[in-house]
Amino acid sequence: MNKTDLLSEGKTKKIYNTKNNFEVIIHYKDNITSFNGKKNELISYKGVLNNEINSCIFKFLNSCGIKTHFIKKINKREQLCHKLKMIPIEFVVRNFICGSLSKRLKIKEGTKITNQITEIFYKNDKLKDPFINDNHAVFLGISSYNELNIIYKIINNINNYLNKYFYKKNIILADFKVEFGKNYKNEIFLSDEISPDTCRLWDKITMKKLDKDPFRKNMINKKEILNIYTEVLERLNKE
Amino acid sequence: MNKTDLLSEGKTKKIYNTKNNFEVIIHYKDNITSFNGKKNELISYKGVLNNEINSCIFKFLNSCGIKTHFIKKINKREQLCHKLKMIPIEFVVRNFICGSLSKRLKIKEGTKITNQITEIFYKNDKLKDPFINDNHAVFLGISSYNELNIIYKIINNINNYLNKYFYKKNIILADFKVEFGKNYKNEIFLSDEISPDTCRLWDKITMKKLDKDPFRKNMINKKEILNIYTEVLERLNKE
Repeated sequence: MNKTDLLSEGKTKKIYNTKNNFEVIIHYKDNITSFNGKKNELISYKGVLNNEINSCIFKFLNSCGIKTHFIKKINKREQLCHKLKMIPIEFVVRNFICGSLSKRLKIKEGTKITNQITEIFYKNDKLKDPFINDNHAVFLGISSYNELNIIYKIINNINNYLNKYFYKKNIILADFKVEFGKNYKNEIFLSDEISPDTCRLWDKITMKKLDKDPFRKNMINKKEILNIYTEVLERLNKE
Repeated sequence: MNKTDLLSEGKTKKIYNTKNNFEVIIHYKDNITSFNGKKNELISYKGVLNNEINSCIFKFLNSCGIKTHFIKKINKREQLCHKLKMIPIEFVVRNFICGSLSKRLKIKEGTKITNQITEIFYKNDKLKDPFINDNHAVFLGISSYNELNIIYKIINNINNYLNKYFYKKNIILADFKVEFGKNYKNEIFLSDEISPDTCRLWDKITMKKLDKDPFRKNMINKKEILNIYTEVLERLNKE
């Protein structure tokens, strides 16, 4: 499982081919980004923490029977994963009102959503990742109705599993973003990452934000964000 | 069926109660509006044309077995309709890319959509009628999943019937907006209006716009828009 060539590089990760055609190595960089990459900074060691956190969460989801890209963590910054063709859609799953939705619907942040809101966004930098619906996705040729229905079912399961998982760690999963890809057999796998970069996590008692949000809003500095990510990791590692 | 009191007044219509608790009279005003009412002008006689055009279209849909609010035209400006509790959602049905969607997805106006795109917008002036999905609608308490599924099926039928109807009149139905309401038995009825105010209609041969769009864009004057609406009415009346 040695790296061969660089397959692609995103804002926070590099993906390398391996000698096995069906596997890639994902390397976590130290970048932290927000506002679609407009804010992009380096925080030394953040990639190490994110690799570790993601490994915990994906290992857990694998154990629940969710098909994920994660095979194993191979070193501090890298994971071995199934090679997938990504579906260019961000699936945002909301259990509580926050962020952009709070502004759009003028509803107070922290309002509980009882029917789980799932939103889809077309991953396209030129269009600034617009909010779309299933009809748009099919028209754009980026997914099919059948594929979307399968993914929505997987997402419901993921949300149920993760809610319980985080709750045991005294964390409320307010919302999160997931992405999916397909392997050579066209099977759908959860891919990308699930971490404080892509979730809103709140302490169950104090409601302290345990995610990227306070950094995005310039409310805390680099050292504080590292402390938060470290705290999340410690909670996940505690039995 | 005499009018009693004014029940409500919108941008282009007034609704009156009648002595029959289950029926209302809808009065078409001469207003023409666009950009969520920011542009609002009077065009003498426009209400008469719109009442006539809407009567034609709703009579046709009634004959197809679609449940609509329309009972009968009672005079130049007024219709007798079933009294409904409106669902505050605008359903936009697209057969061709145009307007806001063209801008949002950077796709050329006039591109054919083969899978019929239906979008829903929350009718709320304060929020500027935001684009939402079914999850939002249910969370907001403005509809249920079951109700939305029933409406989507009705919309597919309406789109099929109207496409054929207009095509026979040498008109392409590029897109249109519909609204629904429920009667005292909670049965869903097509309501509001279907006219050149709420549809994009293109001449089949010349692609001339037979709707409000050129007026909205200040490309034609009041007299020209009346001519266009008159032309649409003449085509609908031709066997």
